[in-house]
Amino acid sequence: MSDTIPSYRAIDPEIVERIRAAVGPEACIIDREKLEVFGKDATEYFRVPELVVEATTVQQVQELFRLASSLKFPVTPRGHGTGLAGGAVPLAGGVVLSLQKMNRIISIDRENLIAVVEPGVVNLDLKKAAAEKGLFYPPDPASLDTCSIGGNAATNAGGPSCVKYGTTRDYVLGLEAVLPSGELIQAGVQTRKGVVGYDLAHLLVGSEGTLAVITKLILRLIPMPRTVTTLVALFPGLHSAMEAVTSVLVHGHVPSALEFLDRHCLDLVGDLLPFEGVQDAGAFLLIEADGAPEVISGEIERIGEICLECGAVDALLAPDSYKRTQMWEVRKQVSLRIEHNSPVYVPEDVVVPIAKIADFVDGLPELEKLYGITIYSFGHAGDGNIHLNITAESREILERVEDGIRAALERVLALGGTISGEHGIGVAKMRFLPLELSPESIRIQRAIKRLFDPQMILNPGKIFKESC
Amino acid sequence: MSDTIPSYRAIDPEIVERIRAAVGPEACIIDREKLEVFGKDATEYFRVPELVVEATTVQQVQELFRLASSLKFPVTPRGHGTGLAGGAVPLAGGVVLSLQKMNRIISIDRENLIAVVEPGVVNLDLKKAAAEKGLFYPPDPASLDTCSIGGNAATNAGGPSCVKYGTTRDYVLGLEAVLPSGELIQAGVQTRKGVVGYDLAHLLVGSEGTLAVITKLILRLIPMPRTVTTLVALFPGLHSAMEAVTSVLVHGHVPSALEFLDRHCLDLVGDLLPFEGVQDAGAFLLIEADGAPEVISGEIERIGEICLECGAVDALLAPDSYKRTQMWEVRKQVSLRIEHNSPVYVPEDVVVPIAKIADFVDGLPELEKLYGITIYSFGHAGDGNIHLNITAESREILERVEDGIRAALERVLALGGTISGEHGIGVAKMRFLPLELSPESIRIQRAIKRLFDPQMILNPGKIFKESC
Repeated sequence: MSDTIPSYRAIDPEIVERIRAAVGPEACIIDREKLEVFGKDATEYFRVPELVVEATTVQQVQELFRLASSLKFPVTPRGHGTGLAGGAVPLAGGVVLSLQKMNRIISIDRENLIAVVEPGVVNLDLKKAAAEKGLFYPPDPASLDTCSIGGNAATNAGGPSCVKYGTTRDYVLGLEAVLPSGELIQAGVQTRKGVVGYDLAHLLVGSEGTLAVITKLILRLIPMPRTVTTLVALFPGLHSAMEAVTSVLVHGHVPSALEFLDRHCLDLVGDLLPFEGVQDAGAFLLIEADGAPEVISGEIERIGEICLECGAVDALLAPDSYKRTQMWEVRKQVSLRIEHNSPVYVPEDVVVPIAKIADFVDGLPELEKLYGITIYSFGHAGDGNIHLNITAESREILERVEDGIRAALERVLALGGTISGEHGIGVAKMRFLPLELSPESIRIQRAIKRLFDPQMILNPGKIFKESC
Repeated sequence: MSDTIPSYRAIDPEIVERIRAAVGPEACIIDREKLEVFGKDATEYFRVPELVVEATTVQQVQELFRLASSLKFPVTPRGHGTGLAGGAVPLAGGVVLSLQKMNRIISIDRENLIAVVEPGVVNLDLKKAAAEKGLFYPPDPASLDTCSIGGNAATNAGGPSCVKYGTTRDYVLGLEAVLPSGELIQAGVQTRKGVVGYDLAHLLVGSEGTLAVITKLILRLIPMPRTVTTLVALFPGLHSAMEAVTSVLVHGHVPSALEFLDRHCLDLVGDLLPFEGVQDAGAFLLIEADGAPEVISGEIERIGEICLECGAVDALLAPDSYKRTQMWEVRKQVSLRIEHNSPVYVPEDVVVPIAKIADFVDGLPELEKLYGITIYSFGHAGDGNIHLNITAESREILERVEDGIRAALERVLALGGTISGEHGIGVAKMRFLPLELSPESIRIQRAIKRLFDPQMILNPGKIFKESC
């Protein structure tokens, strides 16, 4: 993996002083102990920065980039550091620009169903503020109680609700961003629609902080669904579970969550499951439907019937929110327990066409055997997004693990899938990028990078290999 | 407006011969009579091309661009010519590339809820093919029975269903496109999610055929809602109607259409309305809700009650599909009758925040008086998209009409709106682009154009002024 780590550029003490003068010393962190936390995200990548600028105003962000572009030092932007691809880790050195203190919810406009926020706002805080006005901000990555909206936009984060509500991109109407030159641009609109010029706003979404730094977001909200109903079902195997998924959708139901766990995951969290006979089961589904109570009344029962018709051995409704939380806990404990149990733990995040999930997972034991790994599959059945957690008993077989990951990703692509549904490329998946993208596509994307960042100062060495 | 017309480049007869040899003479139209239809769209812009290449294969598209980039002649791509901004009119001369015969529906995958189509497929044909498999392709521009999916993607077309289902961009998962160099690229994914590299697919959507020519689209389908229920309501004025719109949304209902007509429009189509007392009314709403019958049962009645609580003088449900068609006819006849009655007719397509629609329309009589024009307002109340149809009694006052349009657009922007929600810039709105976009934003967009099309051969002189 080492060939994807960008070369490190130390920062001149004189430059540190100029930055402190430009953005104000109170925005600068230089104390080694305090710096450490800014050197990592939720991966194993780690590099302590020499200087962190903790911006509270857009002017500070602009000042920093004016200096960076004139003095040519790297800047790595970060939100709350919950990323799963190393995108916010300052591997190239230079300055970390933390946006976590730019965390104002500027407005929640109930009549126009729009929120205006700074990038450091925590996803859950926005959800709560919207809910107070009867509105709903759907994107729900697993880290929603700690991750930032700016980071969500940078990686186009999704979550279980994506099957009904889409990803972050679907909620970003417009944004304000600082270019590597220090210029501030507006992109997109403040309205529900717009088609004026090229869609720069959505080009920045998902660009993993490599084209510009988002300093304000204009987000679409939707009416808050007043009720959520939850169902869990146990199936003999993944094929019957996936048949139920397709059948639910084809019957015209659009669940607000459609999560699955495979046999390996059931082994880990069986104690949390409200079923008997878990040891004989092969797959688990968690399904939700939301909406106005009078509108969705009965819907979850019909979905439960579909599950039974497709072979579910048992299906249970959550009678109250306490039980609902318990049911989600099963899903949420999976990755914690996998990580806890494994000296080697690589969270991949592939997507395959939903009807191919079962076949894909069926083929994994072969890879496990070939490469000496264990692969846990769970995730978003409704959109084919599989969190493929690859583990091994020992760090001594890291090379075989790497070969196993590559083999799994190649199978994903052969099925018409993609190597990342939610996490992004960052540095963690950079070496696999050419498996999915053609040289022409990479050439255009690198040219777009150079267009926005001709001096390669903004988050260098991410997504694309530095040397290419 | 003449300063926005690009300079015309005649095509050398020798080049015509080389093109015929490269793409095959059967794909070439050179007969003047047959060429005329390729010289226009749904605007007044018109220029007969000298040569049309009617491609049936992606190889022909590539061959044409290989020649165009080596011999430097302009190529203007077109679908079915229903655009409302002049985007497909070959004002710069050269070759028209018609994609209307690349109209195969390659697959409708029921299990994965995905369609793969060529760009010339008519929107309605895709809707029908999806419906046969119980699936739904929501985007519904007014011209859906004649417009092409490729053109829809080029302009990010929307329609009444956008309020619930979004625009074309929300349904394009991936695409295949030919670059001006003749290279073929894949962009986006074939799955429901993906965040690998920059989002080239959605950059091409809405780029009005100026960056690349889309030759294949991978589209997201959704389960077909089994029932649609329709309601029309008459209000004393637009303020009470818009209050009802907000109230419906805030009550958690997400209608699949939320259309409005203003007082001027009611004057034109009053004879078609199923109400008495139309002459005293000030606004009309058409609202639909869709979904599984047992799920949405009663929803439209509750929406009707909300309308009455907000001051509707009358609200009627469509009891059957015949009545539903009649109710939509009211909405559809509006623009036809406006155009029929007016020697000068300019269809603008602005968006304002939904809570500002009524205030904006309230201010229009002042503009009418100042500029001697009549402004009809109707459109998509649920997303603030107002089809502002500006008319005048005589072509002699065209300059005043132009001033009136500019004044209206300036008001839209002052309210936080955008000058185009669905139609795009093309050539028709090019002169207004700097009202909305900053010089920095335009500079980046022009650089993106040059990156894709360094020789400026693909649809030159659209969106951005040629000389800039």
